[in-house]
Amino acid sequence: MNDTTSFHLPAIEATADLALEARLRHKIDHKTKPLGALGLLEALALQLGLIQRSESPALHSPQMVVFAADHGIAAEGVSAYPQAVTVQMVGNMLAGGAAINVFARQHGFALQVVDAGVAAELPAHPQLQPRKIAMGTKNLCHEAAMSRLEAQAALAAGMQTVASLPGNVVAFGEMGIANTSPAALLLARLAGAGIIDATGRGTGLDDPQLLHKQAVLTRALARHPATEPFDAVGELAALGGFEIAMMAGAMLQAASERRVVLVDGFIAGAAALVAQALAPAVRDYLVFCHRSAETGHRLLLAHLQAKPLLELDLRLGEGTGALLAWPLVQSAANFLNEMASFESAGVSEK
Amino acid sequence: MNDTTSFHLPAIEATADLALEARLRHKIDHKTKPLGALGLLEALALQLGLIQRSESPALHSPQMVVFAADHGIAAEGVSAYPQAVTVQMVGNMLAGGAAINVFARQHGFALQVVDAGVAAELPAHPQLQPRKIAMGTKNLCHEAAMSRLEAQAALAAGMQTVASLPGNVVAFGEMGIANTSPAALLLARLAGAGIIDATGRGTGLDDPQLLHKQAVLTRALARHPATEPFDAVGELAALGGFEIAMMAGAMLQAASERRVVLVDGFIAGAAALVAQALAPAVRDYLVFCHRSAETGHRLLLAHLQAKPLLELDLRLGEGTGALLAWPLVQSAANFLNEMASFESAGVSEK
Repeated sequence: MNDTTSFHLPAIEATADLALEARLRHKIDHKTKPLGALGLLEALALQLGLIQRSESPALHSPQMVVFAADHGIAAEGVSAYPQAVTVQMVGNMLAGGAAINVFARQHGFALQVVDAGVAAELPAHPQLQPRKIAMGTKNLCHEAAMSRLEAQAALAAGMQTVASLPGNVVAFGEMGIANTSPAALLLARLAGAGIIDATGRGTGLDDPQLLHKQAVLTRALARHPATEPFDAVGELAALGGFEIAMMAGAMLQAASERRVVLVDGFIAGAAALVAQALAPAVRDYLVFCHRSAETGHRLLLAHLQAKPLLELDLRLGEGTGALLAWPLVQSAANFLNEMASFESAGVSEK
Repeated sequence: MNDTTSFHLPAIEATADLALEARLRHKIDHKTKPLGALGLLEALALQLGLIQRSESPALHSPQMVVFAADHGIAAEGVSAYPQAVTVQMVGNMLAGGAAINVFARQHGFALQVVDAGVAAELPAHPQLQPRKIAMGTKNLCHEAAMSRLEAQAALAAGMQTVASLPGNVVAFGEMGIANTSPAALLLARLAGAGIIDATGRGTGLDDPQLLHKQAVLTRALARHPATEPFDAVGELAALGGFEIAMMAGAMLQAASERRVVLVDGFIAGAAALVAQALAPAVRDYLVFCHRSAETGHRLLLAHLQAKPLLELDLRLGEGTGALLAWPLVQSAANFLNEMASFESAGVSEK
């Protein structure tokens, strides 16, 4: 259904392996704790084992990649901040002063920023990957956000970004003033959510501003009829953003290499929707880290049947939710690898 | 109202400081992020600053203390596991094989186990503090769980445990087969919850076992009429456990020394109820780390107006929820100390 003729979608294996799953469940259930007593960490340990095809998953060299881009729809006044903040925040990240830098340092993540389509020329920097598709998307209230070729180029660039990274864990974040708008539109189109329900306050709209944003997005969605037959790349081109497209490609590549993918908040969730529409097996590799305060995120996670690790009322993006959840992912691997069993510890069972 | 003649309740200062709070809020609000975008971490950063009387709180040498004890009420068949598991799990912890050991190693916590009242003689071990009050509590279905003097001795022992510790952060955990029963009774008595609502499945009761536990606890609560006038030490003696009493004393001492206190799940929450009944200002020092799957914990946290950092369906105890939340506490301090401000980074505000 999807036109993949002009870019190669990497092959992604589903992680299902009934024999390994049985061995992992046995190992988890015989740790010195009541059955199921480590809650979500137990499901996570199982997922890690299946991803790595191992009863002793090991995580190493975790990488943080932030995709940055601008959005033509910012001209409609759908964000609380001016578009210039995108490039300013990229500068802040490269200088080490943003929230994502603080948490990357705390948890030992190497951090790279990818210029996916910032509306400014960015000076070279060792942590900046220049992969600009265009100087921001077009205003999707009037035309497609990007061409089909641009969408494919962005997906391919995201794949290339991951292919060059070390380690077996990747976290993806984003920066892009107005990017809750394309995320809401993709949620509405790809998951069938109502556009009003999918539209939230982003970085802090007040009530009149929220109503304005909902009106703008309702018109924008009507401007781009659903593809028939369904065509994920076509929807991405009409409604998306360069950082979302690139992150979707990055998720696909990471899954094809059996890396663990830490999924941040609402924007990253929209990228996951796109990636899943292109290759459903990608879902097996995604660890949903955080439910954000953005209205539509609850609907998005429900659609993906995802129960995130954290719910801290974050609404910052950058990948902050993914990095804050990282120690829990490590804990899941650690209990699986290090806890004693009832037998080895001589503890009575029920 | 409380008889504190025979043990000294340490003086605890409330952390309120309007001038410092204003400076902390200003610092938080001028970081390069939308207002409030770090959600619960922002309230936590404020709390850390007020506890340490500093705009740049620093956390060091975190300590994990696990209080272990047995419970006479275990004879009523209110737990899924035999009483012998308490001493076996203490052995497992001292051998480094329990979940709490894994997470303490992961996060660099020094771990000590305190024998508050295990129903067995425990061999000496460098990580074991012998503070046994008795060989388990009495069966509170028939008589008070402990005498008033024992309750006071346990509170005092908890205080002494903390007074000897380095660092400015303490996490408390517990091990004690059947201890969700005294916790439920204290929740009912100290917070006015219905005993049926306060009673949960603990380490994994099935429906008939849960009904039995609820019937046992209903009778037990009726056996011990409410103190009149209210007397927290009296309620603790009638309904409590040695690990709960000792943990309550430890919380009071930690607060008196302005340490950050990481509060684990349901049992630790019951200790917090006792501590707050003895000295309300202790509340300012408590960081509620986790909402457990145990039924009554939601009621307990609501009573304390606490919004915990994690909700992972844990029901293990030991202090695991506290240690899993620790990186978030560090993140709160780190963003406050390390993030750039709009002014310093040259980023436009709204």
